[in-house]
Amino acid sequence: MLDLIAPLVVPNATKIVLVSLDGLGGLPRPETGRSELETARLPNLARLATEAACGLVRHVAPGITPGSGPGHLGLFGYDPLRYQVGRGVLEALGIEFDLRAGDVAARGNFCTVDGLGRITDRRAGRIATDVCVRLTERLRGIRLPGVDLFVEPVREHRFVLVLRAKGRAGGLSGRLSETDPQALGTPPLPAKPLEPKAKATAQRVNVFVAAARRRLAASTPANMVLLRGFDQLPQLPRFPEIFGLRAAAIAAYPMYRGLARLVGMEVLKTGATFADELATLREHWDAYDFFFLHYKDTDKAGEDGDFDAKVAALERLDGFVPGLRALNPDVLVVTGDHSTPSVLAAHGWQPVPSLLWSRYCGADGVTAFTERACTAGSLGVFPAQHLMPLVMANALRLTKYGA
Amino acid sequence: MLDLIAPLVVPNATKIVLVSLDGLGGLPRPETGRSELETARLPNLARLATEAACGLVRHVAPGITPGSGPGHLGLFGYDPLRYQVGRGVLEALGIEFDLRAGDVAARGNFCTVDGLGRITDRRAGRIATDVCVRLTERLRGIRLPGVDLFVEPVREHRFVLVLRAKGRAGGLSGRLSETDPQALGTPPLPAKPLEPKAKATAQRVNVFVAAARRRLAASTPANMVLLRGFDQLPQLPRFPEIFGLRAAAIAAYPMYRGLARLVGMEVLKTGATFADELATLREHWDAYDFFFLHYKDTDKAGEDGDFDAKVAALERLDGFVPGLRALNPDVLVVTGDHSTPSVLAAHGWQPVPSLLWSRYCGADGVTAFTERACTAGSLGVFPAQHLMPLVMANALRLTKYGA
Repeated sequence: MLDLIAPLVVPNATKIVLVSLDGLGGLPRPETGRSELETARLPNLARLATEAACGLVRHVAPGITPGSGPGHLGLFGYDPLRYQVGRGVLEALGIEFDLRAGDVAARGNFCTVDGLGRITDRRAGRIATDVCVRLTERLRGIRLPGVDLFVEPVREHRFVLVLRAKGRAGGLSGRLSETDPQALGTPPLPAKPLEPKAKATAQRVNVFVAAARRRLAASTPANMVLLRGFDQLPQLPRFPEIFGLRAAAIAAYPMYRGLARLVGMEVLKTGATFADELATLREHWDAYDFFFLHYKDTDKAGEDGDFDAKVAALERLDGFVPGLRALNPDVLVVTGDHSTPSVLAAHGWQPVPSLLWSRYCGADGVTAFTERACTAGSLGVFPAQHLMPLVMANALRLTKYGA
Repeated sequence: MLDLIAPLVVPNATKIVLVSLDGLGGLPRPETGRSELETARLPNLARLATEAACGLVRHVAPGITPGSGPGHLGLFGYDPLRYQVGRGVLEALGIEFDLRAGDVAARGNFCTVDGLGRITDRRAGRIATDVCVRLTERLRGIRLPGVDLFVEPVREHRFVLVLRAKGRAGGLSGRLSETDPQALGTPPLPAKPLEPKAKATAQRVNVFVAAARRRLAASTPANMVLLRGFDQLPQLPRFPEIFGLRAAAIAAYPMYRGLARLVGMEVLKTGATFADELATLREHWDAYDFFFLHYKDTDKAGEDGDFDAKVAALERLDGFVPGLRALNPDVLVVTGDHSTPSVLAAHGWQPVPSLLWSRYCGADGVTAFTERACTAGSLGVFPAQHLMPLVMANALRLTKYGA
């Protein structure tokens, strides 16, 4: 898809706004038979849906529940099955660690082991974040030959480990097996190389783990570490170059800023609320062609299984729609990175309601922004990586294919 | 798809029932403009459709009429264009012949040839089945070097030929051309190897055909044989392992039992009716996670071009729906392996109405289980091999993809 699009891109002065409502899609509450979107009062989204082309976006494949990485990469135009972001990398992005090409990142857990080294609690009783901070400081003192070591606290028992080759050494590999056996009663596993060139990296990781164990021996319950999701920054084609767009990301949460940076968007400084994001959008309106805005509240409520909170989050977002439209974007997209139905209290596999408004979108018969209504939309159920080509076309930024 | 799914499978105790109504889909009867499904009184299926996600399943590709093999392999999650079951193998499965890896099976016809060896009737006047039985006994006496020979009657003029390498000989190949020219007035063709390693197999088949001609010379009208659809058991990934499901098949007809066995399902002993199948389901409810039930009557009526009989078959099936629901499956699917419109009196290419019910299916606006109503369903028109991923997701048996 990207190979098809890139040569067709033509310049234009049109403005595009893509709003990702995290965990947007839901499911009917059994008591009422109505989903969060069907329950919420969303007059502005309904009006927009009436004027827009609607559909349901599927990020990975039928039945597959996307994580936030594949969910957003899809919206940005990348086939999430081809371009993958490892868990270690995502975790590093989530704390805005300045991960560089060649770095190897892993998710770490502080855990508890018994006298024989067998895991008794994979999360060390979810130690407080300030304990985590103190323990990561202790681990930073570990020295490994040829690599710089970063041990960064995340929250509670979670931290990020990053290995960076010193000087021009290079040659690290993220193709390592995990040390977390995901089971109790057994000791952590050694990291094993999954490709020949990962041998040296595995060795260093194992030296780190042994040293960590010695340094943590007295700090029960967090007396050992588990490492998962080793990976390096993926090589992604750069969004601004493929699409010929000056692209900016406005997101209150670090992970989404990180994902946007990963594809080459500029990340704008913003505040903690969507009102702040909208203010940032207004402020930078002239300087960019494409704006990615991220709204987290919908996902948070869904993950908490809090149907009413998700309804409220949707209604709050609806209130911002007139402000978005007042900027007169040429293309306005409202979509999400995955469903988070409150009844599941987790990400879901259900395709996500989406609308695309432009002067040329060819409105369909959809008059409400809900899962059910979007089923009948003119966009149908479509793969996420088809969205950006549609956006570009509606922004009159693609020339025709063939003579 | 299977490669994507397998690593995401997680254990759960949920129960899945997949009911395949053979030849389910139909077409409007010109006199009324209503299809079999639109004519039948199906209150239970309508209620289920109202609560379920609906759509139309396409088994192979637009315009392509599936045979029973690809039709069911698709429902089981296998891309029918990638995984193919030869006609000889299907015919052997249909008589519950214990076909083994490496065996070469072919469909046989008794036919009539004239004094010059030219075919005058490809079906030998559809001789009675007991004549077929007697003639196959005569052919069993033929001896071929290095292989065991099986000649099994099917029905009327049809039989199955199986070649099995003796001891550890191995090396048979099913890549042979057919001896049936599918035309009258010409003699049967020699079997030709379609790959170098099929040379010895072709030679043996031709020795068999020559010997058969001698043994049948006096048994006009069945004085010769025609062989088609040479093939060996395909190498199919095993369903229970891919999906992590203890899977059972309940089917009154041998061919469907054979197809289920081919993918590694356990085949349960059952009776000749759907009531028997339902009793078998109840009896084994605790022992399996996944049940495939097969209902033949819809196809039989369709193949006979008997619109009213197909309507009646659908209404009978509808009566069993409450019994199915009473078992409280977590996921209940009603679908089919292909259409058999009565007006065609044959398999059709039309996509097949399908419904998937679970607590998390996200009901759509469909309130009737018909071709037309399912067109507006949230599952859309979808490839058969997407069904199992959806089933697995709805059974909460898949973890998310990516972080």
